[in-house]
Amino acid sequence: MTTSASRSDVAAGMMPPLNDFRVEKDLLGEVRIPKNALWGVHTSRAAENFPISGEPVGAFSEFIRAFVTVKQAAARTNRALGYLDTERADLIEAACQALLKHDDYRSYFIVDAMQGGAGTSTNMNVNEVIANVALKLAGHKPGDYQILHPNDHVNMAQSTNDVYPTALRLGLFTATKPLLGALEELARTFEEKADEFSDILKVGRTQLRDAVPMTLGQEFRAFQHAIETEIHHIRSQSEAFLTVNLGGTAIGTGLNTDPRYANTVLQELGRLTDLAVKGASDRIEATSDVGVFVLFSGVLKRLALKLSKIASDLRLLSSGPRAGIGEITLPSVQAGSSIMPGKVNPVIPEAVNQVAYLVAGYDVTLSMCAEGGQFQLNPFEPMIGYCLFSSLKTLIAAVTLLTKKCVQGITADAERCRFLFERNIGIVTALVPLLGYETCSRIARRTLDENRSVPELVLQEKLLSQEVLSNLLRPEFLTQPNVGLVETAFK
Amino acid sequence: MTTSASRSDVAAGMMPPLNDFRVEKDLLGEVRIPKNALWGVHTSRAAENFPISGEPVGAFSEFIRAFVTVKQAAARTNRALGYLDTERADLIEAACQALLKHDDYRSYFIVDAMQGGAGTSTNMNVNEVIANVALKLAGHKPGDYQILHPNDHVNMAQSTNDVYPTALRLGLFTATKPLLGALEELARTFEEKADEFSDILKVGRTQLRDAVPMTLGQEFRAFQHAIETEIHHIRSQSEAFLTVNLGGTAIGTGLNTDPRYANTVLQELGRLTDLAVKGASDRIEATSDVGVFVLFSGVLKRLALKLSKIASDLRLLSSGPRAGIGEITLPSVQAGSSIMPGKVNPVIPEAVNQVAYLVAGYDVTLSMCAEGGQFQLNPFEPMIGYCLFSSLKTLIAAVTLLTKKCVQGITADAERCRFLFERNIGIVTALVPLLGYETCSRIARRTLDENRSVPELVLQEKLLSQEVLSNLLRPEFLTQPNVGLVETAFK
Amino acid sequence: MTTSASRSDVAAGMMPPLNDFRVEKDLLGEVRIPKNALWGVHTSRAAENFPISGEPVGAFSEFIRAFVTVKQAAARTNRALGYLDTERADLIEAACQALLKHDDYRSYFIVDAMQGGAGTSTNMNVNEVIANVALKLAGHKPGDYQILHPNDHVNMAQSTNDVYPTALRLGLFTATKPLLGALEELARTFEEKADEFSDILKVGRTQLRDAVPMTLGQEFRAFQHAIETEIHHIRSQSEAFLTVNLGGTAIGTGLNTDPRYANTVLQELGRLTDLAVKGASDRIEATSDVGVFVLFSGVLKRLALKLSKIASDLRLLSSGPRAGIGEITLPSVQAGSSIMPGKVNPVIPEAVNQVAYLVAGYDVTLSMCAEGGQFQLNPFEPMIGYCLFSSLKTLIAAVTLLTKKCVQGITADAERCRFLFERNIGIVTALVPLLGYETCSRIARRTLDENRSVPELVLQEKLLSQEVLSNLLRPEFLTQPNVGLVETAFK
Amino acid sequence: MTTSASRSDVAAGMMPPLNDFRVEKDLLGEVRIPKNALWGVHTSRAAENFPISGEPVGAFSEFIRAFVTVKQAAARTNRALGYLDTERADLIEAACQALLKHDDYRSYFIVDAMQGGAGTSTNMNVNEVIANVALKLAGHKPGDYQILHPNDHVNMAQSTNDVYPTALRLGLFTATKPLLGALEELARTFEEKADEFSDILKVGRTQLRDAVPMTLGQEFRAFQHAIETEIHHIRSQSEAFLTVNLGGTAIGTGLNTDPRYANTVLQELGRLTDLAVKGASDRIEATSDVGVFVLFSGVLKRLALKLSKIASDLRLLSSGPRAGIGEITLPSVQAGSSIMPGKVNPVIPEAVNQVAYLVAGYDVTLSMCAEGGQFQLNPFEPMIGYCLFSSLKTLIAAVTLLTKKCVQGITADAERCRFLFERNIGIVTALVPLLGYETCSRIARRTLDENRSVPELVLQEKLLSQEVLSNLLRPEFLTQPNVGLVETAFK
Repeated sequence: MTTSASRSDVAAGMMPPLNDFRVEKDLLGEVRIPKNALWGVHTSRAAENFPISGEPVGAFSEFIRAFVTVKQAAARTNRALGYLDTERADLIEAACQALLKHDDYRSYFIVDAMQGGAGTSTNMNVNEVIANVALKLAGHKPGDYQILHPNDHVNMAQSTNDVYPTALRLGLFTATKPLLGALEELARTFEEKADEFSDILKVGRTQLRDAVPMTLGQEFRAFQHAIETEIHHIRSQSEAFLTVNLGGTAIGTGLNTDPRYANTVLQELGRLTDLAVKGASDRIEATSDVGVFVLFSGVLKRLALKLSKIASDLRLLSSGPRAGIGEITLPSVQAGSSIMPGKVNPVIPEAVNQVAYLVAGYDVTLSMCAEGGQFQLNPFEPMIGYCLFSSLKTLIAAVTLLTKKCVQGITADAERCRFLFERNIGIVTALVPLLGYETCSRIARRTLDENRSVPELVLQEKLLSQEVLSNLLRPEFLTQPNVGLVETAFK
Repeated sequence: MTTSASRSDVAAGMMPPLNDFRVEKDLLGEVRIPKNALWGVHTSRAAENFPISGEPVGAFSEFIRAFVTVKQAAARTNRALGYLDTERADLIEAACQALLKHDDYRSYFIVDAMQGGAGTSTNMNVNEVIANVALKLAGHKPGDYQILHPNDHVNMAQSTNDVYPTALRLGLFTATKPLLGALEELARTFEEKADEFSDILKVGRTQLRDAVPMTLGQEFRAFQHAIETEIHHIRSQSEAFLTVNLGGTAIGTGLNTDPRYANTVLQELGRLTDLAVKGASDRIEATSDVGVFVLFSGVLKRLALKLSKIASDLRLLSSGPRAGIGEITLPSVQAGSSIMPGKVNPVIPEAVNQVAYLVAGYDVTLSMCAEGGQFQLNPFEPMIGYCLFSSLKTLIAAVTLLTKKCVQGITADAERCRFLFERNIGIVTALVPLLGYETCSRIARRTLDENRSVPELVLQEKLLSQEVLSNLLRPEFLTQPNVGLVETAFK
Repeated sequence: MTTSASRSDVAAGMMPPLNDFRVEKDLLGEVRIPKNALWGVHTSRAAENFPISGEPVGAFSEFIRAFVTVKQAAARTNRALGYLDTERADLIEAACQALLKHDDYRSYFIVDAMQGGAGTSTNMNVNEVIANVALKLAGHKPGDYQILHPNDHVNMAQSTNDVYPTALRLGLFTATKPLLGALEELARTFEEKADEFSDILKVGRTQLRDAVPMTLGQEFRAFQHAIETEIHHIRSQSEAFLTVNLGGTAIGTGLNTDPRYANTVLQELGRLTDLAVKGASDRIEATSDVGVFVLFSGVLKRLALKLSKIASDLRLLSSGPRAGIGEITLPSVQAGSSIMPGKVNPVIPEAVNQVAYLVAGYDVTLSMCAEGGQFQLNPFEPMIGYCLFSSLKTLIAAVTLLTKKCVQGITADAERCRFLFERNIGIVTALVPLLGYETCSRIARRTLDENRSVPELVLQEKLLSQEVLSNLLRPEFLTQPNVGLVETAFK
Repeated sequence: MTTSASRSDVAAGMMPPLNDFRVEKDLLGEVRIPKNALWGVHTSRAAENFPISGEPVGAFSEFIRAFVTVKQAAARTNRALGYLDTERADLIEAACQALLKHDDYRSYFIVDAMQGGAGTSTNMNVNEVIANVALKLAGHKPGDYQILHPNDHVNMAQSTNDVYPTALRLGLFTATKPLLGALEELARTFEEKADEFSDILKVGRTQLRDAVPMTLGQEFRAFQHAIETEIHHIRSQSEAFLTVNLGGTAIGTGLNTDPRYANTVLQELGRLTDLAVKGASDRIEATSDVGVFVLFSGVLKRLALKLSKIASDLRLLSSGPRAGIGEITLPSVQAGSSIMPGKVNPVIPEAVNQVAYLVAGYDVTLSMCAEGGQFQLNPFEPMIGYCLFSSLKTLIAAVTLLTKKCVQGITADAERCRFLFERNIGIVTALVPLLGYETCSRIARRTLDENRSVPELVLQEKLLSQEVLSNLLRPEFLTQPNVGLVETAFK
């Protein structure tokens, strides 16, 4: 007989005295469970089988909440269709409501987030906790499953293979919301900065080389729009999580369900979550399909790579303080060096870069999980869920930090921008429509060779008058379509 | 002075005699070019600078065609707005039409598909070939750029940084079409097989373990629906390629364009391509943005992983011939072994798996390209394009082969399916609503321990009558929602 | 003034009353710290700056221990060279010894494992905890840094940029040991099974098709040898962690160290760790170099992919129980299904597959970190460390579970192996040297078409006598080089 | 009956008249083959089955050469052991020698590099070409296999499953040589630059922030040492390719070989290649094992990431010309922009970055191939080979270009280095041992706030005398361990 205890007890090598246990059994034999634990035999075995990541499924609260809600919808449906008596349905209902209301039950979801078995252990854990919470609320002892059985009643008309993927999708849908909120705040912050910097003329850069002029405002406006685009894609792709295979049971055929079950349970679920939950048109296909996760991971990776690009731009723009670009200054959030006094580093953007790389790595992990599924089920959904929830968690943190501890406090060094702008050779491009590509190439080369400025040489060579030149080099001509305007300007 | 020759000449170490050359020059000096070559100095330098993949950009025909069309639209616009005289506009027009009509010019697009410089070399190559084709068609000599200049006229109002990304998007849009066609044929073929196999009862499998029953038709129907879903996503995501940054020139500000240019050129481009081409709302953001490629790569990877899963299922289902599952037989397309007589291997699905892995690898390459772009441009678009065109090419090949050389010829071994189905213990699941989970667990275990069948034991233990049991195990009860029906059935 | 509390307090939204704080300050201003906390101002800021993974660096105990040991070596060196007075050196020494002895200090290493700043925050955390533990042990108050200063004394002659990479390497070296132990046990277990199964003749399989014969023992022997090879590579590559850049300070030039420092501190470190620690020959190169991590990650990935291949083989070999291959049985460790009674799944190998995919994903994350480092330092080492420590942790768990909960309990179904072997057509290969490839091909085809066995047809066609045939099909001929032996056999 | 033609004929839709064909057959039926083609029926089918990458195996010349050499060794062995008559052995010998001498036969290796079937098609292609070349050289007609049979004679005692992996390893070993040569030249070039730049004092940078001083020579010396380290790892890891499974035949058991065969053939192979070829200790394990490829890919990725880091550093150091760092100038190799006159871009480093990303992507592809192999063989070795040969090819190109078209021509802007160095605040670090961390922090802050220099303020505050300060800031003190020296200096 195996003995089960909480993860931390096990870790600590501590075992409570024998009379603090109750005994449960399954087809493999008996297991001792701490007397008041609200999990059961299947959870207990799974907790021992998978001491892998150290992170229990209870840590993914949106997932657990979604799972409990699915159980609630199933219980209501089973009662409505006449398969579950009112007493038991009420017990399940009460337990689900309690679990959704109080976070303190979260500690009973102890199976490791990284687990074999396609999520069966998580489903078993949820079934057992619901049953035992129900029993406890009704004044019974944990484990008194004649009154309410985790499998026969809580899991009625369900299989791990439909409830797990359904709960995973709904949990991810919910967990995406705060990411969208954080991104919206980031976009707003970039917008504020774009407004603030709208008059600061600077050098645009391509391939790390000085190119044609722009304003610092335009540069930050582009960041704003980039984030807004990402928001659009994440929101739109997350909608796909609302299509679920619930009702398909073991392999999508709906074996052991009433023909009315699938529709009814989805209606209940929609009502409980206030979401437009839909059934997959081919539940057999849907049961083994993980394409929605692959694509969502792709969308998160797209965001991550964009954030990383922006973070790198911010690091480069603020590089220095003396021997870099130095067009902007990031707020100081901590001392940068244990040896170099006064050094302040772009630690927040660096954290953002790293989170982006992590998300890109999880995308590969998830892809291999997706590829390896066989026949009527993908057994690697637990790792798929782990990757996506972890990506969401770290992205939310990174975006929030980027907004609050970095972008909000960015200041521009307008003088430095102006200094670099005026030395820039790229403004010669604006003279091409008047002077031609070849003359301009020659000017550009002289400028560099003789360490002089473009206007200086143009005037010296009497290619243009001071007036025309000044007209041409006005900010509003340099930072937008200008050809007709220019011609007008000096007629 | 450098001397340029065609790639193969260079490779062969052969150099034509001096009088077979003409001389062109740029800011770095003079270059000798084979007299009749239709490229120019910039192409020549680039061909020498990037002997990397061995694949010239000319190999990507949809890309080159899109590029030429963009040039055509620009020339028309420049004429319409009064910046390009009619003669030159006509010359460019004629050259573009010739290039779009005749594939034999393809050999002049010689710069390597893998190149530094953000695509400038490809743009230069296109400009120079258009100029020289125009000159040749009009009876002039190649290189006579006073008449028509690659940069001043062909490239007028353009920058690599707007025409390259635009052509890349439109080229990819076009190159996606045959993939969609190939997938549609695959879906249809799976549908035919699903119809053909609709009465064959078999064991469903989860986690490589015998699970509950299904039909072979249902299994192939799921493949059909999976492919249909992928078609939907690819088509829908490819639409995003129609939004372009054309008109933004160097960094998206539209410097050196007439304010009317951007809209007009898009209208021309729409007319020429018959596509709903749109301008990006923020061209500065759009010029450095490669998110659309990241997401499209994600969609292709999703398809690839699904194809790989299906290919693996086909390999497993056809495994044997004697010591495997053997429920289906794949058509023989070649001898399987140089040593084992009579061995035939699932070579087509194996090719599909490998293409899928390649696509997943390209997704990582592309991600790193996307992440590494800095400031107002992503200089790594050439590799991004290489990855996507290569993914498309190999996916189209893989899907076509899978359809024609594998799925179309699949036959079912109905007898083998039936044999395995009848020995399956999983059908005990269908008895749970009547006999309960615990009794069924006991039966399952006895079945395995005593090497007997479920019906045999149920009858021996008199748990159900022969009549009820037969009713319960009818295919139509086993492969769909059945609970209410079952109860009706034996009342 | 910011207020700092432990992570969990912050998470819980609880703030102790004001008089439970002390105040520390840095160049950014003052910070309130819980009175008895053994960290300081820099740690406090960092803990607020990086609430990302939720995993504090204290969770990586080998890393922290290595870090403390590096500090101890530095203090001893600074005393020996005359830069640190004996009192302070003794204080540091005592603190380090206490930290290495007692795990309860671990809770003071609170900065998040995912952090910007190239590890400065971890170094600051270590400096501050050592200083405060020292102060506490000597009866002083935390924060009384005149007596012992985290930067001036604990960090003397050091920079994050040399101590962090050094501690990371040594920590990883130590964390690799238990993986090697776990792998050795796995190899031994495979060896036992190879011995146990050495007489069981079975079908070998290539490309999922029946191939030529082998024994089940040979199959498990190959697993054993595969693992032994991995052990060799991991051990050998981990040695590279012993070459460190300690003494290089900020960028590897050794600024602010005594010329004798670098050698002395390495000798001290070698003495303290009993490891053959060596100094990098070019510390400037070594300071920004992360190649050793890239390659070690590659070695771990190699192991992971091999484990995954073996796990998949075990799942396939045990597939069934009735409609699969079924040559072996994996031990049952938990019920497999919430709906299908009696179903037992290969949950341990499935967990192994998933861990392998995770490791492959971390390898991509780490690669992007490695690629993104610029100039004289790679700022992404914290994520590099996270990936490697997490890979090691999950691999150790996966290997241990595979050994104890799966391989040790595997049993063979010798009867099933024999049954499949006897029906196998691949044995016809063994007749090729006598009958020729073409005759054998014909026999193979007849065997399949007429559903008969190879020996049956060979005898019917009188191609060989019963005696010769029996000789040829003896196990010892079928499972090793046999050509000369065979000829001898029936002369 | 299928008709086979060369790939290009097929592509062009052209079919020669009927009497230009000969007919060959296999178990699937007859195939028409162009009369003089030197491949046969199996090649023909495979060429039709796999029109995937468009790259024939003949493009990988080291692989084909290694394959032919393996066949030669086998033929010699078979003769020596008395299984192959002298006439046929001589025929094979002559064909192999011809193939190794003349590249023009390369066009007969027409099967696509991306193929299903574990390399059987490549092996068949090699067998058939050797047979037909032999027949042709001896004055027979192609296809006259009674005289010399591709399978019975050329493939004697072999299986694809041992010759393919063996040839792949040896081919990769050979293909690695030019990479090592290219890297050696790159290292030498960095060394020259390091010498050239040894006196140029500059700002070191960590996390893109100005850090402590170094020389430009030290920076380039670090590049040199980095490349030397990569050379060491590539060379050392490539040695593992010399251990092969030759002699194992179909699954490593050596079925259908003489017990003396394995050792003899390895000795012959060693003699022919002049390499220390060794047999794997467990050929069963070795036949399915692809770990050596995984690790070699890891080593190539390590190189790629390092090259990419160096390329990015070069791009950053040369950024500008006016608004960037500008400490070095890369040689101009082509015009940088079609719109911006005078712009020159770092196109060679950009190409290097992209190749690095490609190699990192191939590493993922290869990993998935490695993971997906099942039982006694990995069927995905063709894609594994494709990835590694492509990685080698593009890396060789990238390294060569980097050396010849970039690093060799790099010049330093010593004035700019000096200018940035003198404004650098990081030199305050060198004063810490004298003035303490806090005073130095204050100076650093004043320097920045008041836009002044460190020496200026130190003198103004009378913290040090001009003499001491000058002593301290001497280059030799700033760029190496200095503490004791400094104290001496101003005593």
